[in-house]
Amino acid sequence: MSTRDILYQDILYEVADRIATITLNRPDRMNAWTPVMEREVREAMETAAEDAEVRVIVLTGAGRGFCAGADMQVLQTIDPSDVRRASSLPPFDMNRRADWQTRYAFYPAIPKPIIGMLNGATAGIGLVHALYCDVRFAADSAVFTTAFARRGLIAEHGISWMLPRIVGHANALDLLLSARRVSAEEALRIGLVNRLVPSEQLREQTYAYARDLADNVSPASMRVIKRQLYEVPFQTLAEATIEANREMVVSLGSDDFKEGVASFVEKRPPQFRSV
Amino acid sequence: MSTRDILYQDILYEVADRIATITLNRPDRMNAWTPVMEREVREAMETAAEDAEVRVIVLTGAGRGFCAGADMQVLQTIDPSDVRRASSLPPFDMNRRADWQTRYAFYPAIPKPIIGMLNGATAGIGLVHALYCDVRFAADSAVFTTAFARRGLIAEHGISWMLPRIVGHANALDLLLSARRVSAEEALRIGLVNRLVPSEQLREQTYAYARDLADNVSPASMRVIKRQLYEVPFQTLAEATIEANREMVVSLGSDDFKEGVASFVEKRPPQFRSV
Amino acid sequence: MSTRDILYQDILYEVADRIATITLNRPDRMNAWTPVMEREVREAMETAAEDAEVRVIVLTGAGRGFCAGADMQVLQTIDPSDVRRASSLPPFDMNRRADWQTRYAFYPAIPKPIIGMLNGATAGIGLVHALYCDVRFAADSAVFTTAFARRGLIAEHGISWMLPRIVGHANALDLLLSARRVSAEEALRIGLVNRLVPSEQLREQTYAYARDLADNVSPASMRVIKRQLYEVPFQTLAEATIEANREMVVSLGSDDFKEGVASFVEKRPPQFRSV
Repeated sequence: MSTRDILYQDILYEVADRIATITLNRPDRMNAWTPVMEREVREAMETAAEDAEVRVIVLTGAGRGFCAGADMQVLQTIDPSDVRRASSLPPFDMNRRADWQTRYAFYPAIPKPIIGMLNGATAGIGLVHALYCDVRFAADSAVFTTAFARRGLIAEHGISWMLPRIVGHANALDLLLSARRVSAEEALRIGLVNRLVPSEQLREQTYAYARDLADNVSPASMRVIKRQLYEVPFQTLAEATIEANREMVVSLGSDDFKEGVASFVEKRPPQFRSV
Repeated sequence: MSTRDILYQDILYEVADRIATITLNRPDRMNAWTPVMEREVREAMETAAEDAEVRVIVLTGAGRGFCAGADMQVLQTIDPSDVRRASSLPPFDMNRRADWQTRYAFYPAIPKPIIGMLNGATAGIGLVHALYCDVRFAADSAVFTTAFARRGLIAEHGISWMLPRIVGHANALDLLLSARRVSAEEALRIGLVNRLVPSEQLREQTYAYARDLADNVSPASMRVIKRQLYEVPFQTLAEATIEANREMVVSLGSDDFKEGVASFVEKRPPQFRSV
Repeated sequence: MSTRDILYQDILYEVADRIATITLNRPDRMNAWTPVMEREVREAMETAAEDAEVRVIVLTGAGRGFCAGADMQVLQTIDPSDVRRASSLPPFDMNRRADWQTRYAFYPAIPKPIIGMLNGATAGIGLVHALYCDVRFAADSAVFTTAFARRGLIAEHGISWMLPRIVGHANALDLLLSARRVSAEEALRIGLVNRLVPSEQLREQTYAYARDLADNVSPASMRVIKRQLYEVPFQTLAEATIEANREMVVSLGSDDFKEGVASFVEKRPPQFRSV
């Protein structure tokens, strides 16, 4: 265990090779989501965001599933009025778009790539979290379901907004209205996951991708590009271009740009130093 | 014929197993679209919406085609100024978004899932109607074309807005600029249809999906989720989440939620009672 | 060489069969982008737009690549403050949406279909130009990369806005954050290109599609439809429908509509005369 590992109750947190791994860790309950897990995932994400040695974050589940959804015991005793109080949330940050301050939609405000490593069943609130990751790699044994409509629930926590941006309007309707089970193959076809990997290679391929980002891509570029891609839903092209031009001027004057061009011309791996 | 069957001129209307089926019924003309059909489809959709025994709607065509487009005889005698009068439309409903009150875009305001069962050729205005369905199942023999640009016409009745949300910007340009014929296989690849089925199994597979929705999914959930998915194009994520939280409180206090959880825990089919 | 061919330094321009072909022509540098190329492509696009004999535009590259990105020598000597001056741009046109007046985003304002014929490597600013084409046909040997993040740069020139509309939010994040190489097969799967063609058939299949548009599709329809599809990102459905109805009245009164219906009924190719 590295010195950066932190002890939590419902998750694991490890850092290695400039990659922070957050593991939902209630394998006997298929990592069903709890209030403790909610608080710990948020703390771990913010720890990774602030750690200058972390460049990429991987979110995964322990055991056979990724996250089977809300814990049924929690769900059966929930006080509906708590939904709108959400007293666990941090105070409103005036310097951050409100969209990325709702209960689970803070992932887009974490300025580092978050890779969802979907090792198995991904359901309900588990799917919400998977969709707030930036990219998703799935084991070929994984299955997916929105679940809500078969429990008498609705499209919760922003999934109605996020899902159509990833799989399109018609697939979002199909998945949310039917709440049917979707295989990993179909998930790839409709774009629900970015890459499908044989189960036994999921870890290897996901970390190869993560290490490539950590080793060969400018952290400053990733931070700016992630922000750009979560801003464009709220911008005209002209607005997006004004912002891009402003960031382009900054990047063209940066050490990472010098190193990016030099390493390309010299055909060697880059050594980016930005945070 | 059940007691709920209603006699129409250009369509058929049947209810069975809590599924209303609307069949475009001019098979000798490939179900070419007429003003009578327009009025009757609207009436049938509203009848299905108001019938508490109907949970799901299927729209299909009689014979070999789904709908070959506007009837050529009607089209050749159309008075262009009628397009903007649209005297056949119902009065403006102040409680419904204007977007879902244009000539054919009322399907999204029907609070039940509408499945397009595309049994064959789907062209021009026929494709417009198919796209306003929530999900589309197609026979592998079906062919698709926007048709408009090869007749000197333009992207009519909102298809310019709807098509990119389903197949993306670039496929929408290809299909609308070229007005070429698209095979069922390509339609599946680009997301124009949700599922491709051998012709002889189209009916069986579509009704299996429809019955699953009618039997195992909460009608209240489907009503709310459908509205959510047709609201998000006009909302920020924060706005969508405010609405979702409000509906989540309602759903958590509902009988359907109790039954959804109980049936899940007891591993039995649910008996939802909402309308 | 036809009389419409014009001599340029970094590009070729030819017109044949009502198709204008613009070829990036620095094959020894993989058609790396230069300020001269920028000025010449703009001039050639505007020439094609104004030429009544041109109905379709093809943009391609000479030699093995389409465009390998910015010329490294130009990039290494760039003055960052020039980015925001952009003194080479034409004066602001008050009758054209600002979105289509940024440095490279003028393609959508060209009122004729632009087909990107991607014959090989398409990288960085080369990919930006490919994405501003209306449709993309790619050789199976082509490879794609956003490149920016591996040079310490950001999502430049509106690609952060355009790419998600074509490949969806999650694929855009993957491609822009990782800046990895994408094969032609993957490009087709995620919708980055519309059609994948064996290299030796790329020219034949692209021009067959282009000639079909030039010969069998109404130029007026293509002009209106292209504008419609680049307006809808900024419109509600109701707004798009108001505009469509206005254009529908015009089209129903046009000679192209008469010819479109007559040629369809008479089962012969149309002879459209609009510009």
